[in-house]
Amino acid sequence: MTERAPLGVAVIGTGRMGADHVRRVHEVTSGARVAAVVDIDAERAKAVAARVDGCTAHTDPAAAMAAADVDAVLIASPGPAHEATLLAAFEHDLPVLCEKPLTPDAASALRVLEAEQRLGHRRVQVGFMRRYDPEYAKLKALLTTGQLGRPLMLHNRHRNVASPPFFTSSMLISDSVAHEADATRWLLGHEITAVTVLRPTPSVSAPDALQDPQFVVFETDGGALSDVEIFVNCGFGYQVQAEVVCERGTARIGDGHALVTNMAGRWGGTIAQDWTERFEAAYDQEIQAWVDATRRGEVTGPSTWDGYAAAVVCEAGVRALENGGRVEVGLVERPALYA
Amino acid sequence: MTERAPLGVAVIGTGRMGADHVRRVHEVTSGARVAAVVDIDAERAKAVAARVDGCTAHTDPAAAMAAADVDAVLIASPGPAHEATLLAAFEHDLPVLCEKPLTPDAASALRVLEAEQRLGHRRVQVGFMRRYDPEYAKLKALLTTGQLGRPLMLHNRHRNVASPPFFTSSMLISDSVAHEADATRWLLGHEITAVTVLRPTPSVSAPDALQDPQFVVFETDGGALSDVEIFVNCGFGYQVQAEVVCERGTARIGDGHALVTNMAGRWGGTIAQDWTERFEAAYDQEIQAWVDATRRGEVTGPSTWDGYAAAVVCEAGVRALENGGRVEVGLVERPALYA
Amino acid sequence: MTERAPLGVAVIGTGRMGADHVRRVHEVTSGARVAAVVDIDAERAKAVAARVDGCTAHTDPAAAMAAADVDAVLIASPGPAHEATLLAAFEHDLPVLCEKPLTPDAASALRVLEAEQRLGHRRVQVGFMRRYDPEYAKLKALLTTGQLGRPLMLHNRHRNVASPPFFTSSMLISDSVAHEADATRWLLGHEITAVTVLRPTPSVSAPDALQDPQFVVFETDGGALSDVEIFVNCGFGYQVQAEVVCERGTARIGDGHALVTNMAGRWGGTIAQDWTERFEAAYDQEIQAWVDATRRGEVTGPSTWDGYAAAVVCEAGVRALENGGRVEVGLVERPALYA
Amino acid sequence: MTERAPLGVAVIGTGRMGADHVRRVHEVTSGARVAAVVDIDAERAKAVAARVDGCTAHTDPAAAMAAADVDAVLIASPGPAHEATLLAAFEHDLPVLCEKPLTPDAASALRVLEAEQRLGHRRVQVGFMRRYDPEYAKLKALLTTGQLGRPLMLHNRHRNVASPPFFTSSMLISDSVAHEADATRWLLGHEITAVTVLRPTPSVSAPDALQDPQFVVFETDGGALSDVEIFVNCGFGYQVQAEVVCERGTARIGDGHALVTNMAGRWGGTIAQDWTERFEAAYDQEIQAWVDATRRGEVTGPSTWDGYAAAVVCEAGVRALENGGRVEVGLVERPALYA
Repeated sequence: MTERAPLGVAVIGTGRMGADHVRRVHEVTSGARVAAVVDIDAERAKAVAARVDGCTAHTDPAAAMAAADVDAVLIASPGPAHEATLLAAFEHDLPVLCEKPLTPDAASALRVLEAEQRLGHRRVQVGFMRRYDPEYAKLKALLTTGQLGRPLMLHNRHRNVASPPFFTSSMLISDSVAHEADATRWLLGHEITAVTVLRPTPSVSAPDALQDPQFVVFETDGGALSDVEIFVNCGFGYQVQAEVVCERGTARIGDGHALVTNMAGRWGGTIAQDWTERFEAAYDQEIQAWVDATRRGEVTGPSTWDGYAAAVVCEAGVRALENGGRVEVGLVERPALYA
Repeated sequence: MTERAPLGVAVIGTGRMGADHVRRVHEVTSGARVAAVVDIDAERAKAVAARVDGCTAHTDPAAAMAAADVDAVLIASPGPAHEATLLAAFEHDLPVLCEKPLTPDAASALRVLEAEQRLGHRRVQVGFMRRYDPEYAKLKALLTTGQLGRPLMLHNRHRNVASPPFFTSSMLISDSVAHEADATRWLLGHEITAVTVLRPTPSVSAPDALQDPQFVVFETDGGALSDVEIFVNCGFGYQVQAEVVCERGTARIGDGHALVTNMAGRWGGTIAQDWTERFEAAYDQEIQAWVDATRRGEVTGPSTWDGYAAAVVCEAGVRALENGGRVEVGLVERPALYA
Repeated sequence: MTERAPLGVAVIGTGRMGADHVRRVHEVTSGARVAAVVDIDAERAKAVAARVDGCTAHTDPAAAMAAADVDAVLIASPGPAHEATLLAAFEHDLPVLCEKPLTPDAASALRVLEAEQRLGHRRVQVGFMRRYDPEYAKLKALLTTGQLGRPLMLHNRHRNVASPPFFTSSMLISDSVAHEADATRWLLGHEITAVTVLRPTPSVSAPDALQDPQFVVFETDGGALSDVEIFVNCGFGYQVQAEVVCERGTARIGDGHALVTNMAGRWGGTIAQDWTERFEAAYDQEIQAWVDATRRGEVTGPSTWDGYAAAVVCEAGVRALENGGRVEVGLVERPALYA
Repeated sequence: MTERAPLGVAVIGTGRMGADHVRRVHEVTSGARVAAVVDIDAERAKAVAARVDGCTAHTDPAAAMAAADVDAVLIASPGPAHEATLLAAFEHDLPVLCEKPLTPDAASALRVLEAEQRLGHRRVQVGFMRRYDPEYAKLKALLTTGQLGRPLMLHNRHRNVASPPFFTSSMLISDSVAHEADATRWLLGHEITAVTVLRPTPSVSAPDALQDPQFVVFETDGGALSDVEIFVNCGFGYQVQAEVVCERGTARIGDGHALVTNMAGRWGGTIAQDWTERFEAAYDQEIQAWVDATRRGEVTGPSTWDGYAAAVVCEAGVRALENGGRVEVGLVERPALYA
């Protein structure tokens, strides 16, 4: 594979998450293409493949993996199907991004762990996407500097507007708190050694028999505690918050600000030192929007008229600066082309 | 151009901004490739081209535009060179993204405006990238809903840590406030009709003879005022803020939160309703990181061990939920592969 | 006057503000009593006086000032009546707290200024109460430290839900912006040397013919600018904000936080170092509530039952700490006295 | 006791807290006077009494309670002395404000509870001053409206810069978490039924053998959970935070803002509707400052010169409004009296 060739990705599973990943690889990701999609529902696979030039549709993951233009596998099928697909990918020695959970239980996860060891090299990235969230990434980076000292406690909040109809009490742990289990391990760099789950009276908004909210306490081998409020019928919004309490300060993400710290008598956050930091996303989106519009044969965004108007205003501004007082701005009539 | 072919972009100018755009189109943007780079410094052009497979180097923009694989032009050369390059692009009838300013003065901008009209269709997008900043975009979207009523005033703050040595007093207007001139026109949907510039005593941190800060007031044909504090040696950070005051509320961006409104007796912001909104950037970056690592032949990110550990913790958590009390977590020894 | 004797205050004017000051001196202020009230409406004066033991009612300020138990004068009558009352107080050589404005115009203010000079010592405190607001006081204290360097600009926002029916366009200046005129002079320590008033299109919520909002720019003899958004029909709330821009940082009050600064790459505020700072107001209000209830012959607030329950919980907590695990809390049955 | 007579208070204990309460009753509280102080250290009692006109000094609480001008008792002596003083106050049938803890253990607290019942009416207010903190009061008021639904969980943070040398691990519960025990009972309106204390590895900043921080979980008879992070050597500041999680939203206090809620898709706080709410404290402090200065024979605060300058500026402002443009401000020379 030369550097220029885009990575050919087979997306396994074309449900909500899989279809979204197809869109992402196709429209957002640089250097990759959707080479194949796989779904046990052949019609659904075909419909998704039809949206992408040169994408083939399959019902068997192994068939997709055997295709010449498939370089890597993205697993977005239901959890119980993961083990077989992972083992098939190992046979083809293909890199895999596997949506969480790796597998639905510890025994099957252990089998996958052992299979990858037999393969002799790492092939799997698990889809704990919070590690790629800009706020979590800043929190991790701050902890890594050691400025705050050793972490002692981690307070997590995980709130959803409402749970889907099929949600059970144990899914609050295995589907939702699974994210905090990984975030705890990753942020603190500790393994979890014990779990306690406390059960307040369920909310009147929780469906019958659902234990919601729950309050979970993790203990770690580094002597830290990590508590999790999981509340999947909170009604007001989707909210994920984390506060790490360290020996010399705390750091918090997720409540409408960016990273906020308590340190040395002050609370607050950092200010960018440079426009590249403040407007990096703006530049990325500007160029992407221009490329997308151009490929569609369109011109969008600020026009020549906008560039002209800015030039006239700035000239007037410079005169106003130099001479004092108020300077009027005179534009030519707006041409029909820019109406 | 079929949908699958990436857009071949010629980047004109390979200084700081141009080189950054080359990196962006090459590594970040989906559906585009850097087909050619142009710089009057032939060595610099070659050095930049060498980093991208199949990219050619030129000293003349017209030569690059004539290349078969160039579909569009991105102008990042100094302002005085823009006019000639834009007119050349019009001759090749190529779409252009032109960094701001369109041209350095009103007369040349008017010539470009007239040339594009003669061409008969829009070809130019001007690089006012704030329109693509997520916070500005949210502010614009809110104004467009009409919830807040008609805009009456816009308060802008534009602060830089320190100005470069070549910066003059008039460049505070033409280089810096130029962004607020466009933001005012775009956010309010008004044309600017007059400008006043006020001059407080310069800061002790401003270089000799530099009038810094300045306070600029724009009047618009919609009867609104837009004031701008421009302070390019504020010392503490890069900060761009905007507050729109409307008939039924205000909306503010840029101070460490996302969009904050004052409306109907409450200040605050919105809470995401869904994980797709909250973690969209995380998913985008997760997939990009996986594709990038895979193309380099590496495996990074959460490993099979992380997936296994999460499975064990969640199983223990479900037992803790069901039985009450504290449940210990038992992991196999960590294999060397995941050390 | 020995230290123990409370200060006997004559309150002149018993309209909304005057009646509120009578309540304040009577119920909130330590070391003072309302000795007399004055109103041209004799019935209103009597009704107010009747609420306070030993308070006399008058229609003539001079008569009140002549009373033996009047030590000081609080003027809360309409502005046009201030000059005569102030001059009368000077004749009795009594200390005066005069609600703003001192007088309604510059000529009469100058006469008062000259009269106090003839008296030879200061007797008047003018009611610019923002100087006593905890947030403004913190802002002033920060500026006084010099940490932020010299002030260059002051941005003020002054918003009211709706203006009263009698409000005129010039009252936005003389009644409302009068506060920012004083705040500018006090915070910056400069005199104001020029004023400009800009008029955006009035809000649809402004009554007919009212120029609302307005945008005012003050210039000062220290070379600073102070701009004021005054918007008395903003609809959403009462909001007073100020941001001082200095050579090394900015400081802002009034938007739902306490004092927030931008300094050296960080935004944020201070954290109290001590419970006396954090809970000073709580202690003050606790003792006042206890005194007030006791004087009414009542017992309110946390009861013996609350003290007992806390003792039982803490004992259980200490056992839980020492032994690990969960400890149940056993209270006696709640007695009827504390039901 | 007629309404006019100030409440004569005997303050028992003149250590740090007692002396502060003497100052408070003497200088801050309206309608009360310090009639007597009591301390086993006779010299200390005399020194404190000497600062207050007409205040007597005692070593025996009962002697103070027998004094004719003592109407009420404020107990600020060490906890072990409370029981005897409370019982003495019951004998004199005097109202008592008793600093927390009521008594140091559950058995003695029960004896006081029974004694007050024998007295037949409530006489005791316990010093849980958080109930009088403006932020806690707003949080309680919001919960009382029922807007947020039933409370399910309460998350508390209680952080001190450093603990005093005599602090023991169990004092983190009995001295510090005692406040959260009361706050939990008061805010939720529930009794606490069980306590669990978790012990993370102590901070390197904690003195030898001190278990700091601790993590406490209360269960309540209303089915709610209340967790408390207590960390008395956090190093960075004194911080008390509380977040109530209810069925329809959450409400949080203590992190640099006022009350912040999550409700119906929005986070944020309320905006005052009126200057009386926003500036109530400013008015209270203005009048108090004037009374205090006047009783000392001084004149402080904004002067006649400030009133005059404001009048001149406002006149210029009104001309600027009416005529457009910039109007200069002309003041007379500043008289020496106001230098």
